Amino acid sequence: MVSSQLPRVGVLGPSSCTPPVREMAWRVGQCIARSGAILVCGGGRGVMEAAARGAKEAGGVTVGILPGASAAEANPYIDLPIVTGLGNARNVVNVLTSQVVIAVGGAAGTLSEIALALKCGTPVIGLRTWQLQAPEDQPAPEIHAATTPEEAVELALRLIPPG
Amino acid sequence: MVSSQLPRVGVLGPSSCTPPVREMAWRVGQCIARSGAILVCGGGRGVMEAAARGAKEAGGVTVGILPGASAAEANPYIDLPIVTGLGNARNVVNVLTSQVVIAVGGAAGTLSEIALALKCGTPVIGLRTWQLQAPEDQPAPEIHAATTPEEAVELALRLIPPG
Amino acid sequence: MVSSQLPRVGVLGPSSCTPPVREMAWRVGQCIARSGAILVCGGGRGVMEAAARGAKEAGGVTVGILPGASAAEANPYIDLPIVTGLGNARNVVNVLTSQVVIAVGGAAGTLSEIALALKCGTPVIGLRTWQLQAPEDQPAPEIHAATTPEEAVELALRLIPPG
Amino acid sequence: MVSSQLPRVGVLGPSSCTPPVREMAWRVGQCIARSGAILVCGGGRGVMEAAARGAKEAGGVTVGILPGASAAEANPYIDLPIVTGLGNARNVVNVLTSQVVIAVGGAAGTLSEIALALKCGTPVIGLRTWQLQAPEDQPAPEIHAATTPEEAVELALRLIPPG
Repeated sequence: MVSSQLPRVGVLGPSSCTPPVREMAWRVGQCIARSGAILVCGGGRGVMEAAARGAKEAGGVTVGILPGASAAEANPYIDLPIVTGLGNARNVVNVLTSQVVIAVGGAAGTLSEIALALKCGTPVIGLRTWQLQAPEDQPAPEIHAATTPEEAVELALRLIPPG
Repeated sequence: MVSSQLPRVGVLGPSSCTPPVREMAWRVGQCIARSGAILVCGGGRGVMEAAARGAKEAGGVTVGILPGASAAEANPYIDLPIVTGLGNARNVVNVLTSQVVIAVGGAAGTLSEIALALKCGTPVIGLRTWQLQAPEDQPAPEIHAATTPEEAVELALRLIPPG
Repeated sequence: MVSSQLPRVGVLGPSSCTPPVREMAWRVGQCIARSGAILVCGGGRGVMEAAARGAKEAGGVTVGILPGASAAEANPYIDLPIVTGLGNARNVVNVLTSQVVIAVGGAAGTLSEIALALKCGTPVIGLRTWQLQAPEDQPAPEIHAATTPEEAVELALRLIPPG
Repeated sequence: MVSSQLPRVGVLGPSSCTPPVREMAWRVGQCIARSGAILVCGGGRGVMEAAARGAKEAGGVTVGILPGASAAEANPYIDLPIVTGLGNARNVVNVLTSQVVIAVGGAAGTLSEIALALKCGTPVIGLRTWQLQAPEDQPAPEIHAATTPEEAVELALRLIPPG
């Protein structure tokens, strides 16, 4: 086995957010990098940029899966832009590529990623994110609540499915 | 103007559901067909099949936007299968093609479609579907609640953006 | 079996073309409509618009699978716009949805659709389109040459795989 | 500017090929790695695996953009699997993510990637690949011919559009 695959932790969150949410995302990125995992995100602004900056400042590696058709739209903390040209359909690529995702805050796009992760079987951890109540004939969605970035990342690494 | 474009109303819902939800989906399909609109759905079982059956029994036209690579996976009430081969990424095509969507019940896949519709600006009507609470720094999602299929379809037709 | 599925014949071609190619596309559209099949295309200008106009003028039904995120980009002869927001990735949806495709002329986008059709197993008929020579260790691509629109559509209907 | 983005060179080729083509792909991978660029490919067997193995054996970094929904389908020489679940629509992601592509041999899937690259404006270099002749009213496709892997990679690096 020649490959040196590292764990891939996704960070989901909106392109516009308040300073406390941005600070939280930055700390999530720092923790992911320190754990030795690769940070996967949508490559945009807001939570995505803060998390990627946190990861880069801690010496980590960042991947940005972009909705548009140009690598130039990536935020400046993305090492590897994946250019999809798929618009919002790229959200599926985010949650399939990540082995576990951490949602930090979130608008409608983040909610779609949480739902797609649940659908695809990617474990989901929530930090101040959406509260969801399923219809009465459906099972409750399994979103693991965390209260701090450190707790979220620690939990994320434990939830990555083995091999 | 040669085109004879008809209104396109999407029905979102799970591939497995209880009899009362199925009955509700069937009535939604009936109402859509009677209104003269085209029913758009994911082409699968459960809510999608019930709604499409309702529409066909009322003389309507049905479109099924399929996740797989074969038209054979469409339920038997689909007039026009759109074969995407995109897996869950086809959910984006559902909500962009529909001018308004009605969510009937719903598991994680339906939740992703509701969220993608919100993100894309397609109006959303909910019938016994997910209850959502946004994070505190984000606006509440605009899901129009309806209590009956008749009310949902009537509201849907009013919410189709002009032109 | 309630469904009234009709044959689906795709027309591939560039958004800009010469008058003789446009005329040929228009005749292809006419023949498809007269055969009772649905015309599937990319919904844009050039060959796509000419074929759709031909189909509408012969009383047919047209579907346009659009690359962008708005139904407004469809040419005026499209009855049913399928709005994908996928950019060029929508080319895959065209060739999977069509049961057979006819390429009329063609630039690089059309070539990608011919290749994707070959890859997906959708039969391909060519009218004044690309000439392809495979690498020496690969099989020659099976593109059925036709010399007239009438011959192309007649051949297309014979090549649709049985149900 | 914190980002450490490296050049991204795509290798296109079939999942099944003859030993001489495989050897050629391996050498392309070696040259890409030695140049300091990241190798991007579809993550599968044949040309993709040979190129990735060449890159890894020369100490390079490899990205595999996969058609399926599981990272387990990547060949063993992929460092970073991008899991799309999009089927053949992932071919678009390959050619948009790469800043230049080298086609080595090729079946229909490779032809679709060459065509999509031409459509998207990604420069294309060919090594024993498809010979294409455009319809008479269309411009000839710009495929840069190379005769050796070394020449192909050297040319590729020169063709990467500036910043």
